[in-house]
Amino acid sequence: MTETAETKAYGAYAGNAPLTPMRITRRTPGAEDVQIDIAYCGVCHSDLHQVRAEWAGTLFPCVPGHEIVGRVSAVGARVTGFKIGDLVGVGCIVDSCKHCEECDAGLENYCDGMVGTYNGRTADAPGHTLGGYSQRIVVHERYVLRVRHSEERLAAVAPLLCAGITTYSPLRHWKAGPGMKVGVVGVGGLGHMGVKLARAMGAQVVAFTTSENKRDAARALGAHEVVVSRNSGEMAAYRQGLDFILNTVAAPHDLDAFLALLRRDGVMTLVGAPASPHPSPEVFSLLARRRAIAGSMIGGIPETQEMLDFCAKNDVVADIELIRADEINTAYERMLKGDVRYRFVMDIATLAA
Amino acid sequence: MTETAETKAYGAYAGNAPLTPMRITRRTPGAEDVQIDIAYCGVCHSDLHQVRAEWAGTLFPCVPGHEIVGRVSAVGARVTGFKIGDLVGVGCIVDSCKHCEECDAGLENYCDGMVGTYNGRTADAPGHTLGGYSQRIVVHERYVLRVRHSEERLAAVAPLLCAGITTYSPLRHWKAGPGMKVGVVGVGGLGHMGVKLARAMGAQVVAFTTSENKRDAARALGAHEVVVSRNSGEMAAYRQGLDFILNTVAAPHDLDAFLALLRRDGVMTLVGAPASPHPSPEVFSLLARRRAIAGSMIGGIPETQEMLDFCAKNDVVADIELIRADEINTAYERMLKGDVRYRFVMDIATLAA
Repeated sequence: MTETAETKAYGAYAGNAPLTPMRITRRTPGAEDVQIDIAYCGVCHSDLHQVRAEWAGTLFPCVPGHEIVGRVSAVGARVTGFKIGDLVGVGCIVDSCKHCEECDAGLENYCDGMVGTYNGRTADAPGHTLGGYSQRIVVHERYVLRVRHSEERLAAVAPLLCAGITTYSPLRHWKAGPGMKVGVVGVGGLGHMGVKLARAMGAQVVAFTTSENKRDAARALGAHEVVVSRNSGEMAAYRQGLDFILNTVAAPHDLDAFLALLRRDGVMTLVGAPASPHPSPEVFSLLARRRAIAGSMIGGIPETQEMLDFCAKNDVVADIELIRADEINTAYERMLKGDVRYRFVMDIATLAA
Repeated sequence: MTETAETKAYGAYAGNAPLTPMRITRRTPGAEDVQIDIAYCGVCHSDLHQVRAEWAGTLFPCVPGHEIVGRVSAVGARVTGFKIGDLVGVGCIVDSCKHCEECDAGLENYCDGMVGTYNGRTADAPGHTLGGYSQRIVVHERYVLRVRHSEERLAAVAPLLCAGITTYSPLRHWKAGPGMKVGVVGVGGLGHMGVKLARAMGAQVVAFTTSENKRDAARALGAHEVVVSRNSGEMAAYRQGLDFILNTVAAPHDLDAFLALLRRDGVMTLVGAPASPHPSPEVFSLLARRRAIAGSMIGGIPETQEMLDFCAKNDVVADIELIRADEINTAYERMLKGDVRYRFVMDIATLAA
């Protein structure tokens, strides 16, 4: 039996129960493992979906959290990439099969055997993974990322591990950069990172929001242009004007309105998964200009490291609101109302209390 | 006023009226025009939609037909590419703006000013274009294609002008060829060309049909493998097994069942436009492997010439059933029942009777 150590966490025992303090165990680091003392953990909308059992298959107790940053506190004998004291991060992935075509390509996010940072299968107790709303985590070094930002920005780095890579990966894959006009739909947790990253990549960035009162905020994030998508006149001015659209909105909405803004061969990539499908897009919206609707899911480990390095170099972090662990239930309620600019981050030091 | 000449045609005076013989006029060839004596015209499902006013905006009298082959019978003074007696074809496009980004790229099919071979705007009487169910047509030389097949295959060449290019263009754009496993969904007018073309391009071709009784026929067309898509066991065996899917089915159907068959970064391109949308695809089908649903519409003029040359070189033509002009109404009824292998072609000589 693997040795374990107890650690404090915040999680739920049932889908209809609030999150509460709990004690969980972490395995003693194996030869290739890195043990991390967590400093901060971002609060992603997926955390809420999973812990409230809005998605199928939630295993309890559930400890969410996959935007983890902290310091290495122990390493296994064969670990070569990290040493005690290193600033590191862990995102949505803590394991994968390590030998399939996807893993070989560094796209562990598309591996059939990918293990999520919480609610994934593991040999560790209690049989499923427990996430970053906790003081400590032990992860195989392959899935540990190096953080090169200065330490005082660490809390704001946390959301890069999910919101950052989820938007960075499609922007890179579809080659956002100078000379390209990129639309970012939705200015929330994901969208605000999409705007910052597309801007840092050198693209002309057009942010789309349903809220008139987010217009200035979107500009402050780096959008060159802002369109209130409820305003059909504003939308019409962008007809066939965009090369690529990163659509971060998970709520079901009219995709045709955005497809019409793409030039020939333009792609709109969805990164939000709605609980119920979007209204079915008109096939003619695709035929008319050889357009495409694609999907993208997080990103691979090498690309996540590339993203973190890109953000460190370009001084990109998330805009965050730091919360105490015992504020998490309130934070969820505010998140549901869109009342956060743009990401809650849990200060894990408050778990010790 | 432009001089005109009368010619016999077959068309309808109203959406609920059968097609009947009629006399229409064609302009005297201008300096850059080619006059074609039509030998054969393919019968496309779009013809039926348009002439029966199932699509918005049908202008009457309506003469359908955009799969035209014949011989040049006159050329304007500045025509350089064609001479009297040449075997030629005309597809879905008879004009475009000639100066936009799309036209400059040879993608007149994506030009906002594209003029369809029937039901398009024109200065010629009666103010809209009249198609290939007629003895003669006059077309600007830019939109005239050279036919290099032997004359005895001419009737079977006609469907290449729409069904051929509509399937060739996406297969080329998404790089179907050796080493790629390509699915072709639907084995009808478009699909049977898709199978033949993908095979001729060197891809491994998997045909998908709902009809058990099309299994042998699909193999005869060149499919290496045939899947009856109603059989979930057969479908499951292809999970994540295809690099590209050409989906030719216009009837609304479950797109997720086919998306699941795509590998990472696989694209399913739709070339059929259903009257009502498909059931909305699950976003997760796209996210899971960075898949995409795209659309493609006919093809540009240079690519249509490339397709015709490719088909001449590789001895590809459509499988057709030749009909007399006065059989067109019956042919439509049979087409609606899928009772044609795989394309009706009207023998325009029968219009003279």
